[in-house]
Amino acid sequence: MKKPRIALITGFAPFADDALNPSAEIARKLHGEIIDGMRIVGAVLPTEFARAPSSLETLIEQHHPALLVALGLAGGRSEISLERVAINLIDARIADNAGAQPIDEAVIADAPTAYFSSLPLKALLLHLRGLDIPVAISYSAGTFVCNQVFFGLAHLLATRYPAVIGGFVHVPYLPQQALLHNDAASMALDMQIAAIRAIVETALKPNIARIISGGATH
Amino acid sequence: MKKPRIALITGFAPFADDALNPSAEIARKLHGEIIDGMRIVGAVLPTEFARAPSSLETLIEQHHPALLVALGLAGGRSEISLERVAINLIDARIADNAGAQPIDEAVIADAPTAYFSSLPLKALLLHLRGLDIPVAISYSAGTFVCNQVFFGLAHLLATRYPAVIGGFVHVPYLPQQALLHNDAASMALDMQIAAIRAIVETALKPNIARIISGGATH
Amino acid sequence: MKKPRIALITGFAPFADDALNPSAEIARKLHGEIIDGMRIVGAVLPTEFARAPSSLETLIEQHHPALLVALGLAGGRSEISLERVAINLIDARIADNAGAQPIDEAVIADAPTAYFSSLPLKALLLHLRGLDIPVAISYSAGTFVCNQVFFGLAHLLATRYPAVIGGFVHVPYLPQQALLHNDAASMALDMQIAAIRAIVETALKPNIARIISGGATH
Amino acid sequence: MKKPRIALITGFAPFADDALNPSAEIARKLHGEIIDGMRIVGAVLPTEFARAPSSLETLIEQHHPALLVALGLAGGRSEISLERVAINLIDARIADNAGAQPIDEAVIADAPTAYFSSLPLKALLLHLRGLDIPVAISYSAGTFVCNQVFFGLAHLLATRYPAVIGGFVHVPYLPQQALLHNDAASMALDMQIAAIRAIVETALKPNIARIISGGATH
Repeated sequence: MKKPRIALITGFAPFADDALNPSAEIARKLHGEIIDGMRIVGAVLPTEFARAPSSLETLIEQHHPALLVALGLAGGRSEISLERVAINLIDARIADNAGAQPIDEAVIADAPTAYFSSLPLKALLLHLRGLDIPVAISYSAGTFVCNQVFFGLAHLLATRYPAVIGGFVHVPYLPQQALLHNDAASMALDMQIAAIRAIVETALKPNIARIISGGATH
Repeated sequence: MKKPRIALITGFAPFADDALNPSAEIARKLHGEIIDGMRIVGAVLPTEFARAPSSLETLIEQHHPALLVALGLAGGRSEISLERVAINLIDARIADNAGAQPIDEAVIADAPTAYFSSLPLKALLLHLRGLDIPVAISYSAGTFVCNQVFFGLAHLLATRYPAVIGGFVHVPYLPQQALLHNDAASMALDMQIAAIRAIVETALKPNIARIISGGATH
Repeated sequence: MKKPRIALITGFAPFADDALNPSAEIARKLHGEIIDGMRIVGAVLPTEFARAPSSLETLIEQHHPALLVALGLAGGRSEISLERVAINLIDARIADNAGAQPIDEAVIADAPTAYFSSLPLKALLLHLRGLDIPVAISYSAGTFVCNQVFFGLAHLLATRYPAVIGGFVHVPYLPQQALLHNDAASMALDMQIAAIRAIVETALKPNIARIISGGATH
Repeated sequence: MKKPRIALITGFAPFADDALNPSAEIARKLHGEIIDGMRIVGAVLPTEFARAPSSLETLIEQHHPALLVALGLAGGRSEISLERVAINLIDARIADNAGAQPIDEAVIADAPTAYFSSLPLKALLLHLRGLDIPVAISYSAGTFVCNQVFFGLAHLLATRYPAVIGGFVHVPYLPQQALLHNDAASMALDMQIAAIRAIVETALKPNIARIISGGATH
């Protein structure tokens, strides 16, 4: 019997002044679920520059995923953000959970300046829109641990696992968090989970070319 | 046998370039439901200055509600807005559904400048927060048909139905609308319905004084 | 020789975590200036519920102004806000400069629920637009000391000084403040001063009816 | 006599529904000015994918600048945006001034995925803050003609003019534009010009290492 392929979904531990992180909730809820014949492995990464990359690498070595979707919280955004660009830069505006705040460092020395996501972003954009889920393509994942993990996974995939498809997705606050953040935008956990499930369903399907714009004038 | 008390919930017909209006969806979904012994009458008002007030008045005369919650769409807001102030002013930035665009007119000549909502807003604020629903008190319902209906109902209650409790609540875009409005904030319909149901449950209960701020510095 | 008429311009002392308040800077800069034959008296009110109203009343008694424009800071707004509605409500989200934080109190017991500004707002809107100054009409001055002073002056004018024209105008952050507030919108002090000078020039002129909308849909 | 070094400042022609573009106004106003011994050449690029890159290349060949600062409009932002990352991607959300709307194309085939700006961004950040000018580092210049020109200049500098320092800066709406864009944030032209002048003064000075964060959590 053929073993099911693995989709690795990672979230992050809560950070800064938040007691929860929707990305971790999603990873936990989807863990063990079978989606389109793929088994989800959900895991939570530490929000620490020193430990997040090796945690992710260990998970990849353990589970040999066919698909890798790393998730993070983008507090204040109102939609699911399909990140297109990982940059080789760390510039921490706040300290991570271990108290580290590196500034103007490379994620990986001697690696390229940036990678594009290998997820089929335009197909995902159309699919989520069809499900009435607010979604957009984003051209910056920031310069904190989220971007570090995104760049790290893109470099790993490019250099060691070329057959694996992977990328990064930012999610909004949960409604209960918005109450603590000056009435910021939010999205219900159910819809966030539905979005990630839809991404897993669509990411490995053969896609016809999708000539739609997801661009930004600035 | 005692007839159940009535809670009248009104929404508005879609307006401007929107094909749907969450306030109408909520009114339709809650229609006929029994909440805490109150029967909901849900109705949709025309988004027209000429017809909205008389439509509301007819509904009040027909149903003799004990509670009246008028709903409207506040596209771009991220939370349930408990409106505190109805003003005696119409100033239409856009035309209504009949093409009328009155500017600088009173809602009702010889009526006061403003009314405060008679809903127990601080108790509602606490109750919705306890349900993890984004919510805030708002100090302006605008100067369009929403404010016209809010002022009209407040004047009716003050002058003819002093025993009826009533007010106005603005709701955010639905997720599928946000996609068409530059990724504006939105709230799932389920959560919007849960919010209005919670308001009906709480509005007529005896409330101890709630000394919490819901204010704005500007 | 005829004594010049007085235009009283008040600002507020800095409050919360801000070290300066543009409204006070404007009042100080305009103090003593002659605009269209009117002499400006600029003064700074304490940002304290207990002292602001009597400070304003004393200034009115001393100077017998023909025009009264009270100014306040609305941090985060990007334009000059011509406030249209003063409400008889105090609900302090933060403490004032004396540490007081009244909640759900009337500004003046037994006074009306609200007053409209007696400034010719539509004429001011057109005039400032013609000067390329970002400007809008606002329908809420909040529930803090700004609204308290606005309501207090409107009540004084309505009950004791019916010949005096007066109202309230909110101004944005200065650029140097925006740097400390998460890159909020701001306006240069020169432009803020030009705006208030233009308001003084226009407020007492006979205005033909200005049928333009300055409304809000919510 | 030694010829002065050249600083090339480019702006863009107005696009979309705007009749003016502050980036072009700045380039015109600074043209011919001598700043710290450098002579400014100010020029306006067409907002057209087909013509902008060759226009820029011609200017570089003509003027042999020591410093190159390309400017563009970022309508809605409230601060001077020092762009850090140019990406090798075009995805036009709207048509350019020639009606072209390329989607998912490389700026330059076989070029790297991205370049970082070679301007000393942290030194510029500190210098502008010291002048009370709202400023931030941005991690996305979009995917329109601005990013195309930014990537094109970064590639030229990296491959053919390694001694030239250059980058891209986005500027906010002018106040008169904000009036037409739903009261968006804006910045006075004088302050925008002062900002670019300060960038020219600082960009080529030897800078001690500036260990300050300009990062973003997302």
